[in-house]
Amino acid sequence: MNIIDRARKARDAGRLILSRSAESRTAALKAVRQALYNHSGEIFAANRIDLDRSASEGLAAPMMKRLMFDETKLVRVCEGIEALEQSDDPMGRILEKRKLDKGLILSRIAGPIGVIGMIFESRPDALVQIATLCLRSGNTVILKGGSEALETNRILTRIIADASTGLELPDGGQPKGWIQLAETREDVREMLSLDHLIDLLIPRGSNNFVARIMRDSSIPVLGHADGICHVYLDAAADPGKAVPIVLDSKMQYVAVCNAAETLLVHSDAAKSLLPLILDSLNSAGCELRGCERTRSIIDVKAASAEDWDTEYLDAILSIRIVDNLDEAIEHIHKHGSGHTEAIVTEDKQAAEAFLARVDAADVFHNCSTRFADGFVFGLGAEVGISTGKIHARGPVGVEGLLSYRWQLRGSGQVIADYNEGRKTFIHKKL
Amino acid sequence: MNIIDRARKARDAGRLILSRSAESRTAALKAVRQALYNHSGEIFAANRIDLDRSASEGLAAPMMKRLMFDETKLVRVCEGIEALEQSDDPMGRILEKRKLDKGLILSRIAGPIGVIGMIFESRPDALVQIATLCLRSGNTVILKGGSEALETNRILTRIIADASTGLELPDGGQPKGWIQLAETREDVREMLSLDHLIDLLIPRGSNNFVARIMRDSSIPVLGHADGICHVYLDAAADPGKAVPIVLDSKMQYVAVCNAAETLLVHSDAAKSLLPLILDSLNSAGCELRGCERTRSIIDVKAASAEDWDTEYLDAILSIRIVDNLDEAIEHIHKHGSGHTEAIVTEDKQAAEAFLARVDAADVFHNCSTRFADGFVFGLGAEVGISTGKIHARGPVGVEGLLSYRWQLRGSGQVIADYNEGRKTFIHKKL
Repeated sequence: MNIIDRARKARDAGRLILSRSAESRTAALKAVRQALYNHSGEIFAANRIDLDRSASEGLAAPMMKRLMFDETKLVRVCEGIEALEQSDDPMGRILEKRKLDKGLILSRIAGPIGVIGMIFESRPDALVQIATLCLRSGNTVILKGGSEALETNRILTRIIADASTGLELPDGGQPKGWIQLAETREDVREMLSLDHLIDLLIPRGSNNFVARIMRDSSIPVLGHADGICHVYLDAAADPGKAVPIVLDSKMQYVAVCNAAETLLVHSDAAKSLLPLILDSLNSAGCELRGCERTRSIIDVKAASAEDWDTEYLDAILSIRIVDNLDEAIEHIHKHGSGHTEAIVTEDKQAAEAFLARVDAADVFHNCSTRFADGFVFGLGAEVGISTGKIHARGPVGVEGLLSYRWQLRGSGQVIADYNEGRKTFIHKKL
Repeated sequence: MNIIDRARKARDAGRLILSRSAESRTAALKAVRQALYNHSGEIFAANRIDLDRSASEGLAAPMMKRLMFDETKLVRVCEGIEALEQSDDPMGRILEKRKLDKGLILSRIAGPIGVIGMIFESRPDALVQIATLCLRSGNTVILKGGSEALETNRILTRIIADASTGLELPDGGQPKGWIQLAETREDVREMLSLDHLIDLLIPRGSNNFVARIMRDSSIPVLGHADGICHVYLDAAADPGKAVPIVLDSKMQYVAVCNAAETLLVHSDAAKSLLPLILDSLNSAGCELRGCERTRSIIDVKAASAEDWDTEYLDAILSIRIVDNLDEAIEHIHKHGSGHTEAIVTEDKQAAEAFLARVDAADVFHNCSTRFADGFVFGLGAEVGISTGKIHARGPVGVEGLLSYRWQLRGSGQVIADYNEGRKTFIHKKL
C-alpha cells in the first residue's frame, strides 16, 4: 500500500476512535502489553536478523546497542505501557466550561490531534513507546523507523496492531488501520507533503535530519534540531555549586541535547572560578576551548568563532568571559538554540532577571541543564523536546499529542436575537 | 529597510519586551489610544487618499466600506484598546508549579510567542486590533495590510509605534521596532521563508490566499481557508428550532466563514421539514439546491457533486437527505472543512453522539453555526478562527498569541545524584 493510502487509513481510523471509550483504549493497551510478552520469542528472532545484518554492514557499536531489543528493553517498554494503562484517559476531559446564556453552554474538551507522523532512528523500543502513547491519547500514527530495525519494527507493529484491534475488546477494539508503518525514504519524502492528511510530525534524529524536515514540510513539526545550551556563572556564583553544575551539565552524558556546550563566566568571578573548572573538567576528560580573556587565566586551547555555534555532543566545552548579565544574555540569544539555559548565582535579583529575560524553552537557576527532560519534569512518557513556541515548548508529555474541540449545547438559539439586541450574552464561567 | 532587517528588528525588540513590566504595556496601550484620538484628523485625511484612489480604480462597494476608517471605526477600535488596558497582562502568569525535590521548584509560565506575521486584507481597523493585541501579550508584529489601505496603514503604524515607545512611559516604553509594516507582495513572499525569525503567521483573507500561505510556508499558520459548515436535522428535530436555526445559520450573514453551506436532513423527517425550510429560506431570498431525494419532496434546483464541496459565501444552500447519523457524519467528514458543524434534535443520545464523533473545531447542538466566534465564546478580542489542530482550534483569543517557558529554580542540584540513586524526585504539584 502506498503512503497516501496508509495516511488515509490512519485518518479514517482516527475518526472512528472518537466513538471509542476510555475502557476500550485501556483494554487495548493491556492486550498490547500481554501480546508483546507472548510473542517475545518472535520479536527477539526478528531483532537478531536486524542485528546480524547491521553487524555485517559494520554498524557502529553505540548504534548496535540502540538497535538491540532484548528482555531488558521489553520489560522497560511494558512498564511504560502499564503506566499508561493506569493513567487518566485524556479524551473528552473538560478544559473549561462557560454559560453563554440560559440554555446555551459552551465546553472546551480535550481530544486527539489526529494523525501523527513519527520519524525516528534505529531504536525499536521508541516505536512501542510512541505507538502506545498515541493509543492512550486517541491519535493514530504513521511510524517510520530506521531501516536497520526493519524486521523488528515490522513484527512490533504487527503485534501492536493485532492485539489492539481484537474484536473481543470493549467497543470491538481500536479501529483497524490506526497504526501504520512506513518503510522507505521515499515514504518519508511523501509524508512531508501530506499536509491534508497528517496533522503533526515528530522527527527524532540528527540535527540535520530534523532541520531538513522542519524546512521541507508545511506540516507542523514538534521537536528540536540543535541543542546549544549554556551555563552562565554570575559574579555571585557559589563555587561549591558552580563546579558540580558545570561538570554535570557538560559531562554527565555528552551526547544528549540538554548537555551544555558553552560556559559563560562573569569577569569578576573568572579568576577564582576558572582554575576550579579547569581542574574538575580536565579530570573528567573534557577538552576546554577559551576566548582570549579565558586563556589569560587558564591554559586552554583557543576557541574560534565557530565554537560558539557548535553543538559538540562530545567532551568539549567552550568558555567565554563576559562583563555582565546583559552580555551573557546577548551571547545566549545570538548563539543559543532556545533549548535550555542556566545561571549559577547567589544573587536573587540576577537569577530572576535571567529567568525572566532569557528567551528559551527552559531557563534554570542553580541546577544542571541536564534536568530538561519530560520524566524529570514529571510529565510522564516523553514525546520529545520542542524548541518551537507553538503548541508545546520544552519537554513534551502526552499533552503535546492533544488538541481540543468546542462543544456548544443550545436550546434553539439563533445569533440574530443577540445581534439585534433582543438577547444578551451572560458569559459566566462554570 | 528590507523585510529580513525588519523581522530581525522585531525579534530583537521581542527579547527586550521580556524585561518590560505589565504596567509598561498597560501605559503604552493607553498612550496609543490617546494618540489615535489626538491624530484622528491625520488618520481620516490619509484614509481619504486611500478611498479616493480606490474609488478611481473602481473598488467594489463592500470593499470600499471595509477600507473606510471613520469616527465610528475609531471609536470602536479605541473601545477595544480600553478593554485590553483593563485585561490581565498574561506575561509571567504561572500555568503550573511543581516541586521536583527539596529546593528544586519547576514553574511553567506564560509568555509571548515572539514575532507574529499578520497578513490581512484592506480593513485598517484590523491593523489596530492586532497590533494592540500583540502589545498586550508581549509579542512583536510584522503587519501586511491591503495595498488599497497603504496610506491609512502607514499613519496608523507610525502613531502606534511613536505612542508606545515614548521614553516617558514606565520602563522607558516598549522597545523600538516592535511593530513593523510590510508593504509589498514581494515582502509577503519573503516573509513566508523567514522561519528562523517569524514564529507564527496569521493570514486573513480569501480562501485561496490563506490556503496558499499554509502550503507555501514552513512557519506555523493560525487560520482557516474554507468554512464549509453543515446543519444536520435529525429524525427527532423540533421544527420550531430547526427552521429558525437553518435560516440563521445560512442567511443571517452569508459572507462569513461560520455560515452554513449544506443542510443534511434525516430521511424520516424530510417530508415534514423540507417544505417548512423551503418556505422560510425562499422568503429570505435563498436559492436551494437539492439531491434527487430532496427534489422528490420539494421543487428545487438539482445539486451537482461540486455543490457539496463549495463554500458559497452567498444566499445558496445545498440540501441532502441521509438515512442516519452515521451517513450525516460521513458526509461532514468527507466534505466539511473542520470548522463548525451543528445538529438539531430532541434526541439526547443522537446529540451527544454527534458532539463526540464529529471531528471539527466547533460542534453544536440545537443552535446556529453563527455562534462560532471569539466574542460570542467570551474569549475577548478575536485573533482568528483556526481549523488546524495544533496550538489553537476554533475561535482564538489572546491565548492563541501565548506560549510558555519552563523555569526551574534549584539550589545546586545535579542529575547524576538522581540517575545514580543518591536522590529521588518528589514530583509534588504545588
